[in-house]
Amino acid sequence: MHLVMDTPASAGRGRPGGLAARLAAKMLRALGDPPVRLLLWNGASVAGSSAPPLLTLRIADRSTLWRLMVDPDMQFGEAFTDGRIECVEGDLVRGLEATFRSAASHAGGGAAGDWLGRHRARLGTLLRANTLRGSRRNIHAHYDLGNDFYRLWLDPTLSYTCAYFADEAMTLHEAQVAKMDHVCRKLRLRPGDQVIEAGCGWGGLALHMAARYGARVRAFNISAEQIEYARAGARRSGLAGQVEFVHDDYRNISGSADAFASVGMLEHVGVGNYERLGRIIRRCLRPGGRALVHSIGRDSPAPLNRWMERYIFPGACPPSLAQMSAVFEPTGLSVLDVENLRLHYARTAGCWLAAFEAARDAVARQFDARFVRMWRMYLAGTQAAFLSGDLQLFQVLVAPARSNEVPLTRADLYRAAPAQ
Amino acid sequence: MHLVMDTPASAGRGRPGGLAARLAAKMLRALGDPPVRLLLWNGASVAGSSAPPLLTLRIADRSTLWRLMVDPDMQFGEAFTDGRIECVEGDLVRGLEATFRSAASHAGGGAAGDWLGRHRARLGTLLRANTLRGSRRNIHAHYDLGNDFYRLWLDPTLSYTCAYFADEAMTLHEAQVAKMDHVCRKLRLRPGDQVIEAGCGWGGLALHMAARYGARVRAFNISAEQIEYARAGARRSGLAGQVEFVHDDYRNISGSADAFASVGMLEHVGVGNYERLGRIIRRCLRPGGRALVHSIGRDSPAPLNRWMERYIFPGACPPSLAQMSAVFEPTGLSVLDVENLRLHYARTAGCWLAAFEAARDAVARQFDARFVRMWRMYLAGTQAAFLSGDLQLFQVLVAPARSNEVPLTRADLYRAAPAQ
Repeated sequence: MHLVMDTPASAGRGRPGGLAARLAAKMLRALGDPPVRLLLWNGASVAGSSAPPLLTLRIADRSTLWRLMVDPDMQFGEAFTDGRIECVEGDLVRGLEATFRSAASHAGGGAAGDWLGRHRARLGTLLRANTLRGSRRNIHAHYDLGNDFYRLWLDPTLSYTCAYFADEAMTLHEAQVAKMDHVCRKLRLRPGDQVIEAGCGWGGLALHMAARYGARVRAFNISAEQIEYARAGARRSGLAGQVEFVHDDYRNISGSADAFASVGMLEHVGVGNYERLGRIIRRCLRPGGRALVHSIGRDSPAPLNRWMERYIFPGACPPSLAQMSAVFEPTGLSVLDVENLRLHYARTAGCWLAAFEAARDAVARQFDARFVRMWRMYLAGTQAAFLSGDLQLFQVLVAPARSNEVPLTRADLYRAAPAQ
Repeated sequence: MHLVMDTPASAGRGRPGGLAARLAAKMLRALGDPPVRLLLWNGASVAGSSAPPLLTLRIADRSTLWRLMVDPDMQFGEAFTDGRIECVEGDLVRGLEATFRSAASHAGGGAAGDWLGRHRARLGTLLRANTLRGSRRNIHAHYDLGNDFYRLWLDPTLSYTCAYFADEAMTLHEAQVAKMDHVCRKLRLRPGDQVIEAGCGWGGLALHMAARYGARVRAFNISAEQIEYARAGARRSGLAGQVEFVHDDYRNISGSADAFASVGMLEHVGVGNYERLGRIIRRCLRPGGRALVHSIGRDSPAPLNRWMERYIFPGACPPSLAQMSAVFEPTGLSVLDVENLRLHYARTAGCWLAAFEAARDAVARQFDARFVRMWRMYLAGTQAAFLSGDLQLFQVLVAPARSNEVPLTRADLYRAAPAQ
């Protein structure tokens, strides 16, 4: 612990700087002493590890410090959104990454805190449960912020999921297209294949499957704005006869398909609904079919950060692989391949954050300053969570149990793509 | 149901052929009517599905049929070993595969049977528990049958685990070497790397890592005969300074390593010991290290066939991925990659069976006829179990949680091997 009192004397009568600084130091210690410096309202300065700080944060007042100490998971995002915590120097992402790492390696002593955290997380899950109606409300809250907003910082395909940097030099746009190809190749798409997609976002993958692989796609989504945008895209690209965008919940999917894809939906499904999703996938798959589920995950079970779950992704939860297996094990699906793309998501979120910062003025014309700060914290926190290993990204390929129409090796995924 | 009474009249007084045939038909029906024909001692012939039978089995007497009906999992292997069930026509492997498939798709009605089966399996697990001493006894029972015996039908590297047919035209020997390379490449072995191997068999992989990748290896095994053979191999190939073969249990592994490999041991560890194994792996791995666990598995939890567990692999259990995750999730390991090599094991077991049949006379000089029949049933049943999807083969690559020294893609696994 490295406690620097830059200007203790300036703190004035009764040494309030002294008490506040001691409390701030205690909080940093509880986080494992990350290389972060806190500048308090009274001029005191407190740093965590003895390494030079990666990040300096200004804390506006005593009440902010107090709330932060009582409930850091929730209050850090709240205070950042309000402007009561500001980043005044250093790298927000690297500072958060270091804090997540030190907090994780320091965890274990706070059983009561963990219990309280789990209890609160469970309350959030109940309040924002993924019933048919709850899911619609939860998805609306995030994905219906306006296509114009997302266009400001996503790549031109409006892919809002982890990209695949097949080559380190790829741009985000190239890596999003590479991700679609990676998914289509894992699914072994052939011309004429019937595909069902659950949770299709703005339709980029469905249109790619149709245009590049000759597939016929039925793609489901409960976000009204996204479905409208996707339908317009299908018409514009002359693919409306090949791709049907359905404004409905995955629980209402019927019909059969050669391939089933779900990229970035499982996070919103809720662990209690996994077996139901698995039964739908299994029922849809024809003999010899393949399915791919792509989801943010965890090394071991834990709820999403509560601030993120409340303000950014209501009802969301990143599962561990053991939790995810509830989709496959009771439902007659055999896991062929799991790939962890965590560092690809760190790069993806880094690209989004950079584009968001570059588009700040345009965002500020659509939303207020609180929204801009909240969104910045969300994108920086996301990149930091993937860099620190707090979050993982699992791509799971499955087939109907006992199907022998499965490839012997994965070598073909890595052969040069056919000329298009 | 297709009931053929070839020679009902020949069955004699009181129509015993009639009753026995009805019972045999009932048994086939309980197995989902596989395309198998049963020839009874009294001349009656009963077939399952209306498709032409893939396999004709002769059942020697009434008592065999009765035992088969009461406890088919155990009694089929027993009767085959005794010669009370004989394969008189058709393909044993294909017939067993079809039976496993039809039995699986027919399952569900027999809740009491399932309960009884689970209960009996649990008893077997208790009797042959993998304590330090129990493991030594269990491993001795199978792996210390004599190196001369295994040399008759394994490939020249004496690899007794799933091979990797990188190219469909590979021989078993080539595919076993390709498997070793696949493992070494997944582990990103570099010259000078320190490797710990848990459950090293006859030492083939450890010697390969040293000879081809320049690694220094400490390899553990509790089979005395295998360790002796491995040590002799190290001396013969001049690698004794680079590879240390340790006659000890994985639970006594200490020290640190850049890579940790366990190929074909987890099956013998017992689900209750998984977290302990995971903590050992985590403790051994240096920052930036990698570990690979290769194990027979299941799509969903179920004990090993009881006959197999009793006579062939005492104490063994193939885990589902969710069960396997007990090795990784509580222990600070992050799953990077899972590959299911089920069809590679079907090929591997097929090669073993063919070599075993070709070496039958030599085997018969070492063992009695009961042993030859038992071993034939084990190898044919193994191939059928992988062909039918009753068994899977999972290769799981992990790294210490939060390590960013992990490869971005898997493409390098599929580039041509460097010239050696």
